[in-house]
Amino acid sequence: MSHPIIKDDEVDVVILATQPDLTSFLEEWRPMFSRYHLIIIKDPDMQKDLKIPEGFNHDLYMKSDMDRILGSTSIRFSGYSCRYFGYLVSRKKYIVTVDDDCVPAKDGRGFLFDAVAQHISNLRFPATPFFFNTLYDPYQKGADFVRGYPFSLRNGVKCVLSCGLWLNLADYDAPTQALKPDERNSRYVDAVLTVPLKAMMPLSGINIAFDREVIGPALFPGLRLAGEGKQRWETIEDIWCGMCAKVVCDHLSLGVKSGTPYVWRKETGNAIETLKKEWQGMKLMEEVVPFFQSVKLPETAVVAEDCVLEIATMVKKRLGPVDPLFGQAADAMVEWVRLWKAVASVSPTPGV
Amino acid sequence: MSHPIIKDDEVDVVILATQPDLTSFLEEWRPMFSRYHLIIIKDPDMQKDLKIPEGFNHDLYMKSDMDRILGSTSIRFSGYSCRYFGYLVSRKKYIVTVDDDCVPAKDGRGFLFDAVAQHISNLRFPATPFFFNTLYDPYQKGADFVRGYPFSLRNGVKCVLSCGLWLNLADYDAPTQALKPDERNSRYVDAVLTVPLKAMMPLSGINIAFDREVIGPALFPGLRLAGEGKQRWETIEDIWCGMCAKVVCDHLSLGVKSGTPYVWRKETGNAIETLKKEWQGMKLMEEVVPFFQSVKLPETAVVAEDCVLEIATMVKKRLGPVDPLFGQAADAMVEWVRLWKAVASVSPTPGV
Repeated sequence: MSHPIIKDDEVDVVILATQPDLTSFLEEWRPMFSRYHLIIIKDPDMQKDLKIPEGFNHDLYMKSDMDRILGSTSIRFSGYSCRYFGYLVSRKKYIVTVDDDCVPAKDGRGFLFDAVAQHISNLRFPATPFFFNTLYDPYQKGADFVRGYPFSLRNGVKCVLSCGLWLNLADYDAPTQALKPDERNSRYVDAVLTVPLKAMMPLSGINIAFDREVIGPALFPGLRLAGEGKQRWETIEDIWCGMCAKVVCDHLSLGVKSGTPYVWRKETGNAIETLKKEWQGMKLMEEVVPFFQSVKLPETAVVAEDCVLEIATMVKKRLGPVDPLFGQAADAMVEWVRLWKAVASVSPTPGV
Repeated sequence: MSHPIIKDDEVDVVILATQPDLTSFLEEWRPMFSRYHLIIIKDPDMQKDLKIPEGFNHDLYMKSDMDRILGSTSIRFSGYSCRYFGYLVSRKKYIVTVDDDCVPAKDGRGFLFDAVAQHISNLRFPATPFFFNTLYDPYQKGADFVRGYPFSLRNGVKCVLSCGLWLNLADYDAPTQALKPDERNSRYVDAVLTVPLKAMMPLSGINIAFDREVIGPALFPGLRLAGEGKQRWETIEDIWCGMCAKVVCDHLSLGVKSGTPYVWRKETGNAIETLKKEWQGMKLMEEVVPFFQSVKLPETAVVAEDCVLEIATMVKKRLGPVDPLFGQAADAMVEWVRLWKAVASVSPTPGV
């Protein structure tokens, strides 16, 4: 089986700007990002002008672009959710996206690690969700399928979602972070693995790449907490759509990988402060996980859009009565699919 | 949740002797093995006397012990399968076992890695089969559960099976090994993960540890190829019982981990020669995997023995007609459970 190379012009790097000066962020990423087209989305809540260093091939989208391109919509693209607007306006097959408080990490040998190249490799080579390979990604150099792995499953399936990890500040929730304020993740695990069929996982949106054409409709800001702030540990929108995307992938025989690349997450915020707020997201997860584990999609759902609409109906019916946020999430899913189709049919040039 | 320390006298290290001189093997392992009681099983096919260096607290079992303790049995404990006899005669709660062509590996920093200590740690701390933690084992030092991981699942479940890996010669089947005669595994992945619920995996018996009391009845030499030789890449008995054990663990809400510790596998045999034989094992795997993926055990099966007998009945009925080897495997499973109970009720002292 051949695995065609993914060309540079098939990739958009989507950057969310939640801080007014992207200079140091983009300078650190310059060796990895400069080959690609960048879509930069300015958090619509941020008033200050945005500083972007010279030399990047980029389009910048701001609140005025959102208003113009989307018209009236109930979905809020503020804070960490502004990146999703980039998924809508991209015209590329693949998207790579990294939070703006992350810089390139070093690998186990101390060399800067090209996170974009690794994400693209993860998407290029198949995933193996139907049987677990104990030596991790069998397509990686120096690896293969272990003894006992059925030959009929060695072609794998298309990988459409690559979930990267974090060194330094790991992606913990507020209580975990507050309990271990000094804990930093220094374990560089040199592995990528396919998350097996039916295994549910908490997708972190901090550092991911995906096949926009195939799974883009399942990556949306659906579940937003009432007091969702500007700290990652307070957000839940990526966890929700990640479970949605995993269910869709399982249904459509597509693959999700987790592991390298790592990014280096800088220190931000104060987890103790966050603890004073309600732990609403954590309470909701107790409902969310069993729900997604039980979702069964009909055979008539053959593309991600269909699947998302089916799941939205189930959310409304089964989770809606539990908490009004779930009803709003279901509405956002339907609205997202509408936007996905609507924006696909217009030319979403920025700043016009 | 407390995780009581596993004491040295709760562990048997089971060593199979397929070569007459264990001196260099045991000397290399001395720093790790000398604290534990060893059960050494001499391959009944091997005629030569066995050399065991001084200074190990061990019991040696030979063909005469097998005949005396087991009486008449249809199960063949020859070649790599002789280790299973050690599982029967052990009276300890935990077993650690390593093939006799493996020596201690070095970790990513070049230090000798204590495989026994890592296996025991894997068994001591819970497994998390119901939800995937992207940062691998959350109980490991410096790690935790990531954002979005439900708090109700953070206690995990009892881990009863720890599957280690291999550096240098990886555990490939004969065709893979023959296709890449010079490939050696040099990727040290510093991670342990729980194999998720319902995910099936190819257990390699080369380097494992398990809770004998709980899952021992599911680790047996059941499926043996007609021409099964003295090379690992020709065997399938561990793959078969590994899938059986995984199904049992899933049913009983027990955990299976895969990852560190690694062992260093030395060069042995000639994969090209093996290729001249029939690829019977690989053909069988095409039937084996879908079968185990579909096994559903009744609620009345509450211990491993029950589960193994239930699976044996299903194997006989559903796989028996496909190949006579499957019927023999089903018979061996029933016989194993009989032996497990019978040997438990006698004092299996060696050399009496």
